[in-house]
Amino acid sequence: MKWNTKITKVEPNHLVTAGYPQEDLIGNIPYPSVVYLLLKGKLPSQEHGQMMDAILTACIDHGVTPPSAMASRVVASGGVPLPTAVAAGVLSIGDAHGGAIEKGALFLQNSVKKMREAKKSFDETADFLVKESREQKKRILGFGHRVHNSDPRTKRLFKLADELNISGDHIALSKAIEKSLEKNLGKKLPINVDGAIAAIISDMGFDYRLGKAFFLLGRVAGLTAQVYEEQTREKPMRKMFTVDAEYDGPDEKKLPK
Amino acid sequence: MKWNTKITKVEPNHLVTAGYPQEDLIGNIPYPSVVYLLLKGKLPSQEHGQMMDAILTACIDHGVTPPSAMASRVVASGGVPLPTAVAAGVLSIGDAHGGAIEKGALFLQNSVKKMREAKKSFDETADFLVKESREQKKRILGFGHRVHNSDPRTKRLFKLADELNISGDHIALSKAIEKSLEKNLGKKLPINVDGAIAAIISDMGFDYRLGKAFFLLGRVAGLTAQVYEEQTREKPMRKMFTVDAEYDGPDEKKLPK
Amino acid sequence: MKWNTKITKVEPNHLVTAGYPQEDLIGNIPYPSVVYLLLKGKLPSQEHGQMMDAILTACIDHGVTPPSAMASRVVASGGVPLPTAVAAGVLSIGDAHGGAIEKGALFLQNSVKKMREAKKSFDETADFLVKESREQKKRILGFGHRVHNSDPRTKRLFKLADELNISGDHIALSKAIEKSLEKNLGKKLPINVDGAIAAIISDMGFDYRLGKAFFLLGRVAGLTAQVYEEQTREKPMRKMFTVDAEYDGPDEKKLPK
Amino acid sequence: MKWNTKITKVEPNHLVTAGYPQEDLIGNIPYPSVVYLLLKGKLPSQEHGQMMDAILTACIDHGVTPPSAMASRVVASGGVPLPTAVAAGVLSIGDAHGGAIEKGALFLQNSVKKMREAKKSFDETADFLVKESREQKKRILGFGHRVHNSDPRTKRLFKLADELNISGDHIALSKAIEKSLEKNLGKKLPINVDGAIAAIISDMGFDYRLGKAFFLLGRVAGLTAQVYEEQTREKPMRKMFTVDAEYDGPDEKKLPK
Repeated sequence: MKWNTKITKVEPNHLVTAGYPQEDLIGNIPYPSVVYLLLKGKLPSQEHGQMMDAILTACIDHGVTPPSAMASRVVASGGVPLPTAVAAGVLSIGDAHGGAIEKGALFLQNSVKKMREAKKSFDETADFLVKESREQKKRILGFGHRVHNSDPRTKRLFKLADELNISGDHIALSKAIEKSLEKNLGKKLPINVDGAIAAIISDMGFDYRLGKAFFLLGRVAGLTAQVYEEQTREKPMRKMFTVDAEYDGPDEKKLPK
Repeated sequence: MKWNTKITKVEPNHLVTAGYPQEDLIGNIPYPSVVYLLLKGKLPSQEHGQMMDAILTACIDHGVTPPSAMASRVVASGGVPLPTAVAAGVLSIGDAHGGAIEKGALFLQNSVKKMREAKKSFDETADFLVKESREQKKRILGFGHRVHNSDPRTKRLFKLADELNISGDHIALSKAIEKSLEKNLGKKLPINVDGAIAAIISDMGFDYRLGKAFFLLGRVAGLTAQVYEEQTREKPMRKMFTVDAEYDGPDEKKLPK
Repeated sequence: MKWNTKITKVEPNHLVTAGYPQEDLIGNIPYPSVVYLLLKGKLPSQEHGQMMDAILTACIDHGVTPPSAMASRVVASGGVPLPTAVAAGVLSIGDAHGGAIEKGALFLQNSVKKMREAKKSFDETADFLVKESREQKKRILGFGHRVHNSDPRTKRLFKLADELNISGDHIALSKAIEKSLEKNLGKKLPINVDGAIAAIISDMGFDYRLGKAFFLLGRVAGLTAQVYEEQTREKPMRKMFTVDAEYDGPDEKKLPK
Repeated sequence: MKWNTKITKVEPNHLVTAGYPQEDLIGNIPYPSVVYLLLKGKLPSQEHGQMMDAILTACIDHGVTPPSAMASRVVASGGVPLPTAVAAGVLSIGDAHGGAIEKGALFLQNSVKKMREAKKSFDETADFLVKESREQKKRILGFGHRVHNSDPRTKRLFKLADELNISGDHIALSKAIEKSLEKNLGKKLPINVDGAIAAIISDMGFDYRLGKAFFLLGRVAGLTAQVYEEQTREKPMRKMFTVDAEYDGPDEKKLPK
C-alpha cells in the first residue's frame, strides 16, 4: 500500500516535518507556530504565529462544567489511564460544544463572499443575515454565552487581531452582526469565544473544516489538568453529582407468560 | 455537590486560571508556558518555559506509522468527525506508546534518590542498574528506537537543556546508563525521545504521573494534521493495508445437533 | 437538576428496566430481547426477538481488516486496558463504516412512504430511485461489498425474515432495487449486510437513527475478541503493517532567518 | 505482514467464525452463545449458554448515575454521533467501574488454588482472607454497593448458577467471604453484581483478564439506550448538573513583569 503524506518524512535519524528538519523546529520555532505549520503547510508570519498562540490559550480551560471537562472527570473517576480520560473529553467536542467555530467560520466565509459579490456594506449584510435567521428560526452561531454577557476572551482576541493587523472582513462582519442582533432583538447577544475564533481564523485564511481543531488543540491542555487533578485529589467513583432522576417509563409489571 | 479545583475560577465575564486572569494570559504568556502553569500550578521561569515549548514540538509528529497516527487515520476512514478520530489516536497512548516517559521518569527519580542516599557516582549507579535489569531480564525504558539509532530529537533536547541550565542529575544518570548499556551489551542502545523527556521533566521537577501528558499534548497536533489530511486527501473506507491474515482457529465444522 | 428517563428506575435492592424488574429479565428473557426492550420500550414478539438475535450475530465479526477491528488492534498495541481499545474500534463506526444501516433505513423508509402515496409498484419505484441516483451521481447505500458479491449474511437474514413473517415493503423494495441496479448497471451490486439490516429494521418499525446501534451492539463482541487476542497472542508495539509512506510535502529547507 | 487469528476467516461469500460458518450461527445459535464462542473458542453447553445470557442482562443498565452512563450522556450532549457517545461510556469502564470483576476473579482464582493446595475449608480460607485484607487495609473487591445492601442481580445470578449446575468452589468461597466479612466487621457487606460475576465466570473457567469484557458487553446496550434517549428527548448542551465548584487555587494576581 502506498500512502502519500505532506506531514512528516521519517528517515533513520532524520525527521522532516512540512519541509523543516524537526531538530531545527524544536526550540527555535514556538510550538503554536509549528502547529500552524502542520495545519497550513507553511510557517506563519510573526503576527499569525502570535495570533495562533493566543487562540490556543483562549481555548485552554473553562472550569469543570463544560461537557468536555465533565466527560474527562467522570471517565477518570472510573479508574482509567490519563490519556483515556483526556480522550473522553475530546470526544464531546461536537456540533454543540466548540462546533460553532466550524459552522461559524463557514457561515462568515460564505457571507463575506456573497457580500463582496453583491457589493453590499457590512451593516446591510448583517441586517439581512439577522432577518434571514429570524425568519428561518435558526440561530446564528457564535453569539451569546451561558455564563458571560461580555466574553473576556473575545475582547482580548479582537484587540490582538487589531494590533497584529489581522482583522479583516470576517471580523468586521462579525461585529456588524453583533450590532444588528442587539438592534433587532432588543438585547445583547455578544460574540462568544467560538464566534471570535471563527472570525479570526477566517481572516487568517484557514479552512473552516479545521474549526473544531483550534478548540481541541487548546482545550486538551485543560482536560489534561482536569484529569490530573481528579486522579490526584479525588477518590475513584466518588459521588460527583446529585441528579434527581425521575423514571417516567412504563409502569412496573410482571413478565408476560 | 461541592467540587474543589485549583484550575479555573469561572465568574460572569471573568476567568481566573491558576491565579491569573485568562485575558492577561492570552497573547502575553506563550501557550506552552500556560500549559506549564496548568500542570505545575505556577508560571515557568523563562528557561523552563522554553524547555516546555521544545518538549511539545519534539513530540509533535512521527509520520503515519505509530499506533496513534494509525488509529486516528483508520478511525477517520470510518467517516466520523475530526475530534472523534483525533481522540482514537490519543487512546493508543499507553504503556507501550509514550509510556516510557512515565515509567522512565519514575525509574530515574527513584534511582537518583537511591544514588544520593548511597552516595554513589553516576557510573556506579548506571552499572548497577544495567546489571540488575539484565538479571531480571527487564528492559530499562527509554533506550533504543525502532527507526533511529541516534534520535535527532534527543540530541536537540539535551543540547537545549544544557543551554537553559536545566540539565541535572536525572539527565546525567540517563547518559551514564546509555554508556553502561553500550559497554555491557556491546551495542549502542541510544536514549530515545521518550527517555530524553523522562530525564528532562525529572530535572524540571515534574510528577512522573504526568509523563504521558507531555507526549499527548505535543502529539495531539500531529494527530489533528493526520486526520485532516485523511479527511481531505483520501476517500472514506479506502484500502489502507495489505494484511495477510492467516486463520489458525478451529477447522470449519457443522453446528452440533 | 431533574432528569427524566424511561430506561431504568434505581431503588435500593430493586431495579426496574422499561417496566420490568431486572431480576425477572435476567435469565428469563433472552439478552437480545432485553436489548430490543431498551431500544423500543417494549418486549418483542417471539419473532421479533429471534430476528433481533440474528441481527446481532450477523454483525459480530468480519476479521481483522475492517476499520473498527484495525483501530481496536492498533490501540491495544499501545498497551492500554481492554475497554479503551474496544472503544477505539467503536469510534470508527461512522457514515462510511456501518453507516449504511442508518442512511439506508432512512432512504428506504422515505421511499416506501412516497411509493405508497404515489401508489407505485416496487419495480417502478426501484427504477426511479436507481435512475435518480445515477443522475445525481450518488450511490444508493447498502449495495455492493469489497469482498463478497453475494453476502452470506444477507441471504441468511432475509431467509429468516421470511420465515418469521417480518418481511414487508422495505425488504421488498430493497430487493427490487438490487434487481434494478443489475438491469441498469449491467453488473450485480448485491445487497450487503448493512443494506439487509437497514431493510429489516425498517420492516420491524425501528427509528432509522438507531441504524448504527445495531451494528455497534453486535460488533462490540468481535472487537472484544480482537483486543483480547491482540493482548494475549501478540507483543505491544509489534510491527503491524508495511506501509509505503511517500512524503510529497514541501522540499526540505532551512529555517528562515 | 502476516497476522494470525483464531477469530474469523474471511473468504469471498464465506465467513468462518471460530470454526463455524457465520450463516449457520445466525439465528441458530443464540447471540450470547456466539459471544461465548468468540471469547472461549468453543460453543457453550446449554447451561453455560444460558448463564452467559443471564450475565449480559445483569450488566445491562443501572440508570443514569454510573460513570459510564454519565460519560455517554455528557458526550452526547456535545452534539456528536451515537457511536462516539457510546464509546465515551465504554472508556470509563476501569479499575473502579466494572473492574472488580477482573480483580475479583483473579483474587478468587488464586485463593481457590491456594485453598486446594493447603487443603483448607471454605470458612478457614475466607477467615484468613478477611483477616489479611484488614491487616493490609485493602478491600476485598466485589463486596458492598453504594445503593443496594442486597443486590437483586446477585441473588438472581447465584440462583441460576445453582439451577444450571455451574456453582463451584469460586462461588462457594465468595459466599464464605461474605459470611466472614459480616462476622468480622459486624455489618453486612453483600456480594455485589461485579463480585457475583467474578465468581461465576471463574466457575465457568474464564480467564480473569476478560473480567471487564462481560460488564462492557452487557452495559453497551444500556449506554446505547442512554445516548439515544439523550439525543431524542433532550437538547444539546442542556444544563445537566448543579456543581458547586469552589476554586481553591492561587489567589488572583497580575502577571509578573
